[in-house]
Amino acid sequence: MTDTQTAVPQATDVFIDFLCPYAWRGVELAAVLRAGGEAFTLRHFSLVQGNHAENAGQATPTWWLTDQPAGEGSEYQQGSLAAFLAAQAAARQGEDAAWAFSLALFRARHEHGQPLNADTIQAAAVQAALDPERFAADLSDDAGLRATLRADLQDAAEIGVFGTPTFVLPTGEAAYYRFENLTRDPAQARAWWDLYVTVLRDGAGVATIKRARNRPARRA
Amino acid sequence: MTDTQTAVPQATDVFIDFLCPYAWRGVELAAVLRAGGEAFTLRHFSLVQGNHAENAGQATPTWWLTDQPAGEGSEYQQGSLAAFLAAQAAARQGEDAAWAFSLALFRARHEHGQPLNADTIQAAAVQAALDPERFAADLSDDAGLRATLRADLQDAAEIGVFGTPTFVLPTGEAAYYRFENLTRDPAQARAWWDLYVTVLRDGAGVATIKRARNRPARRA
Repeated sequence: MTDTQTAVPQATDVFIDFLCPYAWRGVELAAVLRAGGEAFTLRHFSLVQGNHAENAGQATPTWWLTDQPAGEGSEYQQGSLAAFLAAQAAARQGEDAAWAFSLALFRARHEHGQPLNADTIQAAAVQAALDPERFAADLSDDAGLRATLRADLQDAAEIGVFGTPTFVLPTGEAAYYRFENLTRDPAQARAWWDLYVTVLRDGAGVATIKRARNRPARRA
Repeated sequence: MTDTQTAVPQATDVFIDFLCPYAWRGVELAAVLRAGGEAFTLRHFSLVQGNHAENAGQATPTWWLTDQPAGEGSEYQQGSLAAFLAAQAAARQGEDAAWAFSLALFRARHEHGQPLNADTIQAAAVQAALDPERFAADLSDDAGLRATLRADLQDAAEIGVFGTPTFVLPTGEAAYYRFENLTRDPAQARAWWDLYVTVLRDGAGVATIKRARNRPARRA
């Protein structure tokens, strides 16, 4: 290391969609590691956009979730857009607020079966102890929230994210990591994370490990 | 263990298609481990069949490679069918013969850029030291070779194989394992294999690890 380099630890980006139960488990895992001092940054990738017929086979999307009116499209489209914008608003109260809100919203959706709507979002904001007046004010800045969401969606498209959770390591490796089980145990979370990182850095150059016997798809 | 159980070591099945460079690297790895005493059985899965439009979204294929005339379809279809049938014929000379022939044919195709045609198949048979008269006689049993190939394709469909190489462990775990690098080194092969098995048996219940930044597809 030379004196022109700094020792600031870089974060792992985790691309998520609130629709996805695998993203939920990925964020739970990242939250445990984050509590242990490892840096993760929440980013957003839209499954509805990624799977949209208009974007099929396109290197760069032409249909963007951020261009859609709030009340249009499927329940999945409306719910995920509302959740993403709310997460952008929560993030204006700081990174810890963003994590608390995102975890509360993921748990409401995937642990407690709540729909991704305004009521669930407000309950998550309360649970995350957000400043309610500031949250309401920030939520009304629709154009500003869409702009920061769009930046995430653009980065995801550039990286080639196709599902959630996708982790992008500080060293550049990026991969979808889908696992079936939930952990909030620090030692287990560390082991599951280390295995993933080991696979991505292994000399074999692993591109894909994917089970042939798929469980029924549970995401949108 | 009771006295009604036997201690016969069970084999890992490896589903391959001669079209696929990842299957080639998988078979090279399995061959190294096999030389070290671990049991692997060569099985066949057809990428042309798996990717056929008629089979899209079907739980069970309706278009089968084994129902196609030898001279019909794309270069990939004809080449893979010819290679599969030749491998069935080679296997009639024993398991070692099947491995020697399959390795020779994979190397001709993916290491030396040869097409999957009758000349390449004959050269691989010579390199594998097959009995030439018996190989010719077995190759002429088109119906018999197609029947044993069909059994492999049916097993693959039942397991839900979607790409090659897919390994099915004796304990039932089955997954596509795509890696970019070639090894013929025993220690390296062992390490790459152990990592794969570890992922499949990990408590996280890993369903998929797949890189976001895909290299250009090289298979048919």
